[in-house]
Amino acid sequence: MQIALLGGTGDIGEGLALRIARDSGHDVVVGSRDAEKAETTATAYTETLADHGSSAAVDGMENPAAAAGADIAVAAVPAYYLSDTIEAVAEELDGTVLVSPAVGMQRDEAGLHYNPPGVGSVTELAAKAAPDDVPVVGAFHNLAAAKLSDLDADIDWDVPVVGDDGDATATIHGLVEEIDGLRPLSAGGLANASEVESLTPLLINLAANNDGMHDLGVKFW
Amino acid sequence: MQIALLGGTGDIGEGLALRIARDSGHDVVVGSRDAEKAETTATAYTETLADHGSSAAVDGMENPAAAAGADIAVAAVPAYYLSDTIEAVAEELDGTVLVSPAVGMQRDEAGLHYNPPGVGSVTELAAKAAPDDVPVVGAFHNLAAAKLSDLDADIDWDVPVVGDDGDATATIHGLVEEIDGLRPLSAGGLANASEVESLTPLLINLAANNDGMHDLGVKFW
Repeated sequence: MQIALLGGTGDIGEGLALRIARDSGHDVVVGSRDAEKAETTATAYTETLADHGSSAAVDGMENPAAAAGADIAVAAVPAYYLSDTIEAVAEELDGTVLVSPAVGMQRDEAGLHYNPPGVGSVTELAAKAAPDDVPVVGAFHNLAAAKLSDLDADIDWDVPVVGDDGDATATIHGLVEEIDGLRPLSAGGLANASEVESLTPLLINLAANNDGMHDLGVKFW
Repeated sequence: MQIALLGGTGDIGEGLALRIARDSGHDVVVGSRDAEKAETTATAYTETLADHGSSAAVDGMENPAAAAGADIAVAAVPAYYLSDTIEAVAEELDGTVLVSPAVGMQRDEAGLHYNPPGVGSVTELAAKAAPDDVPVVGAFHNLAAAKLSDLDADIDWDVPVVGDDGDATATIHGLVEEIDGLRPLSAGGLANASEVESLTPLLINLAANNDGMHDLGVKFW
């Protein structure tokens, strides 16, 4: 498969690009609004992979070119840019499963708080912005970006997945399973996305309030 | 210490009463609106403890009598009854830390959803209902009641704790630590309670959607 990481030059996109490339064997393309930034970043990712003994190569191109031909496109951008990013690649999404990992949050003096958009969740916002025939799946909301990007770090985390299209959701379960240390779990349909997204500010609040805890993920049992 | 489980005859109250009595050595009193129900239930809990090799005895009385003299009172009632329950015992809360474990949820065809009250969270609703000089701490929101009540079940779960009163919060951290298999974690102040509470419908949605998973709790790392 070809996996596009739209906005894959930063934050959660880096860790997903590196680990999908290293662990799955799929072709990984990093997208950006800036083609040169995408290429430079992809080269750096390929070097990081080589430094960790992987011969996987990551490509980089503008978001629409990255999305073209992708079996899976991950919208790895902040919630604020999500709709614009999806609209910019909409014509390229053909047989593509669109994955939304973003979470809307706001900070006050107490900590981070879940701040969903009016449609209920960022994942549902992605579904609204996507063309009707493009299935949207929510996943990767609860991963600590810094640890995910560190290929020396062993991870052992669960990934709640939400989606209304059974085939598309199964495809993403399969992708999650291919990443070492991640276990996909079904959290139901897109209407359940807000309960998945709201876990992310809790993870950050726990890391902020407990000595020795940082870059937290979660296991359910 | 004396620990009162208000509404301790059902659901989460049963598991907390049994495990606090068995593991901590503190005096446990089960409260109910109905004194006879409280006494009958306390007797049954004491028998369950004896069946599991514990000599701990649980007392039962009406909620106000259970709260009188309690160092910690847990409002183990559904969110809908929380304010009334706290008002009924308010005059008895003297030097008592009030603990709120309740979560507001509603079910639709997709699953369970977080349904907080207007003040932001059920824990903050408890703080509003309690007398001004009674510190309120949020804890025990994310425990699977059926497994908690089964003393043969080994648990290994985290308990996010929220509170604005440092001494009261430390007291509840200490209580959580005394229960085998539970680890207290600070999630910050009461303003962060909604992010803790909203984890509960996710746990239930995950159990409903994944074969072989039930009675889920959570570990953060």
